[in-house]
Amino acid sequence: MTNNQAIEFKPESRSFLAAATAFGDGNDSPRAFLERCIEVIEAEEPRIGAFVATNLDGARQAADAAGARWKAGAPLSPVDGMPVGIKDIMETADMPTEQGSPLFEGWRGGRDAAAVAALREAGAVIVGKTVTTEFAATEPRGTRNPWDPARTPGGSSSGSAASVAAGMVSAALGTQVIGSTLRPASYCGCFGYKPSVGAINRGGSFDVFSQSCTGTIAATLAEAWVVARAISARAGGDPGHIGLTGPTDAPAARKPARVALLETAGWDAATDEAKQGLAGARARLEAAGIEVIDRAGDETVAAAESAIAESVTLSRGINAWETRWPLNTYAHDMDASKLSRHMRDRLVQAEGMTQDDYRQLLDGRVRVRAAYQALAANVDACMTLAAPGAAPVGLESTGNPDFAVPSSLLGAPAVTLPVLQAEGLPLGLQLIGFTDADAALFGAAASVLSLFED
Amino acid sequence: MTNNQAIEFKPESRSFLAAATAFGDGNDSPRAFLERCIEVIEAEEPRIGAFVATNLDGARQAADAAGARWKAGAPLSPVDGMPVGIKDIMETADMPTEQGSPLFEGWRGGRDAAAVAALREAGAVIVGKTVTTEFAATEPRGTRNPWDPARTPGGSSSGSAASVAAGMVSAALGTQVIGSTLRPASYCGCFGYKPSVGAINRGGSFDVFSQSCTGTIAATLAEAWVVARAISARAGGDPGHIGLTGPTDAPAARKPARVALLETAGWDAATDEAKQGLAGARARLEAAGIEVIDRAGDETVAAAESAIAESVTLSRGINAWETRWPLNTYAHDMDASKLSRHMRDRLVQAEGMTQDDYRQLLDGRVRVRAAYQALAANVDACMTLAAPGAAPVGLESTGNPDFAVPSSLLGAPAVTLPVLQAEGLPLGLQLIGFTDADAALFGAAASVLSLFED
Repeated sequence: MTNNQAIEFKPESRSFLAAATAFGDGNDSPRAFLERCIEVIEAEEPRIGAFVATNLDGARQAADAAGARWKAGAPLSPVDGMPVGIKDIMETADMPTEQGSPLFEGWRGGRDAAAVAALREAGAVIVGKTVTTEFAATEPRGTRNPWDPARTPGGSSSGSAASVAAGMVSAALGTQVIGSTLRPASYCGCFGYKPSVGAINRGGSFDVFSQSCTGTIAATLAEAWVVARAISARAGGDPGHIGLTGPTDAPAARKPARVALLETAGWDAATDEAKQGLAGARARLEAAGIEVIDRAGDETVAAAESAIAESVTLSRGINAWETRWPLNTYAHDMDASKLSRHMRDRLVQAEGMTQDDYRQLLDGRVRVRAAYQALAANVDACMTLAAPGAAPVGLESTGNPDFAVPSSLLGAPAVTLPVLQAEGLPLGLQLIGFTDADAALFGAAASVLSLFED
Repeated sequence: MTNNQAIEFKPESRSFLAAATAFGDGNDSPRAFLERCIEVIEAEEPRIGAFVATNLDGARQAADAAGARWKAGAPLSPVDGMPVGIKDIMETADMPTEQGSPLFEGWRGGRDAAAVAALREAGAVIVGKTVTTEFAATEPRGTRNPWDPARTPGGSSSGSAASVAAGMVSAALGTQVIGSTLRPASYCGCFGYKPSVGAINRGGSFDVFSQSCTGTIAATLAEAWVVARAISARAGGDPGHIGLTGPTDAPAARKPARVALLETAGWDAATDEAKQGLAGARARLEAAGIEVIDRAGDETVAAAESAIAESVTLSRGINAWETRWPLNTYAHDMDASKLSRHMRDRLVQAEGMTQDDYRQLLDGRVRVRAAYQALAANVDACMTLAAPGAAPVGLESTGNPDFAVPSSLLGAPAVTLPVLQAEGLPLGLQLIGFTDADAALFGAAASVLSLFED
């Protein structure tokens, strides 16, 4: 274990929902809660580097307004007054949006992204913009893992995970097209939620990918839900999608009858310790009377495993074509020297592709989705690791995303629960549900989580 | 007839494809072609007001580069050197993008929209930004109809239609979520093409609507195709869509065996003269051996007619919900006083809606699409008017869009052919095809068009 400077903090202790029970009688307030967050920001931010920008004055005003509503017994929503971080690929009216790229240093659109506007409408306190890798892709931007600053927090939602893990905010928005929400949540010991594709309106997010989705990284499972749900109720999903539906508060725990254990494309990279952790989780579920099936004993699971083995290849091809624009205009009309080598390579790859290549990739995605969806008749959810192990040492890479890619390709909802460990550091247990059945996944996840509270 | 100042010009005479046959032997050149366009711009623009901005120096450079390629016998595409206008809701690296709104006066994103980048890659000459109504919706911005400057050119692609009609460019990009491409094309005597939904990548276009699509307004039917196809080959469709496919050059004429005449929701507003024009068109098709069926004689047509009667109501509801953002942040974070009354009213409507309202509207759209798609087994295309009559007098309204709404709601491809007249002014004959069968529609349209060349 290398976390000599490891934080003692548990993200759960920054639960706004838990604190809110004391807002009505004046024993606590959103402003006091925010000040506790700001104390952590001031103490830890120089070491962590979770934020690109903050607006603490604005946050304090919003917290005071929320406090008045709680005092009057009329909060706007469960997130009224909750300190939230916004991944810096989403526009904010009061802060720049730099997309993790030197090309966009200081860029301001002057407006809020749909999700940000919805959060403010629900009373949430927007604390700042969290660091993202360049264009929410590969190139890291220096954020450190609060559990061990020698390690990556993961990416691309690096600052979102780090800020929640450090107790700077109760929740933060992320996005995921490969592994950008689940992996950093796993590495940082947070709860992570990647919704069904289309579930959260991406207007004003620089996120053009067909399988990408805005998600949440949070101090508790309930917080991961209520933030997403507060957004969808006010901003809906992507145009053409109804958006996340379900209860305003977190869905109640509901014990799954049967769960499929998936190894996924990441299995070969997983450490023995991580695999043992997953085996231990399986044993816990089985001890609680939940049947766990796997590829060895079930043909539909075996078929799904075979199909999702293609996830990484298909996803990388689809994403390359879909990012031909805007990379082409960035290189041609802005300043190509400010693009990372990763991005210039991706543009070359994209410009070598045709519509027919893309058609084949989309056809492949349809096949994989169908093979996975066949499981829905057989199991309540799937379980696997959220990452191959603990966050790797070093800041030059955000780690191996492969375990998170299947849910991205599938467009299926997924959550990671910080209940496993590797190298004495956090590791997530991932549960994957079925598209547009996000509330059911949360019910199962709450039940599974309770098995680890001992 | 009120067109005292009417132009004598025929848009067809500004066909770049026709001129290009003389580029190889040096009898004409893209630069000479462009200069003929610029002459018209300089003479007519003060009267018409088609452009928000032009970049004539950039256009001349691009035309010269294209000329060198034609001379070498190696044009990049059929649109290499073609002067094109860009609707001012799409980003251009070299010009502002104002969206027809005082809120965005002088706004520059510094990048090209996906369609613009693709056009430049194909060699097209981007002449300028064409006037759009506010946010491509209702509020006009002063463009006049070249056929009669007392009349509206239609909207929201007002400047795109006017610039093509006046001979300032060979083609221009439009968008359509209600009637914004077909109606101005009809009013201005141009060819208009509204592709299948998703067919043209909308990256960098301020166009969030689920049933909107980038389209073309052009001097000839072939130009309407080749511009769209040159884009889709390089930028694809919206993410998740393969995008428009088919031949690089315009599809060959192919006589349809059977066509359904639809009255659509606009019928009650149509003038007697327009209805007579459509009846005459029907007679022409029948005289050529094309069977024309209608609701009176065919149950599937009657069912489709009943279904699409809902198009206007469904479309307006869907669009209202989908524009809740960004109108909410424009009103809250920018300057609400710079929004038109139309826009402020629409925001109030949107803020009164819920996800359940939207779900019902989307369900309705699915039903209408299914009823229309059932026609595909029965007919090659549908025909109707593109507008209720000639462009109305006055600039305070862009006219009645109802005839164009069904193809928007359906996500089906549609073209308008400037072969009818009303009040001595242009009126379009609309042909509607079936989703993702755009090339087949163009084949049928070329065949129908030939029946009017006498």
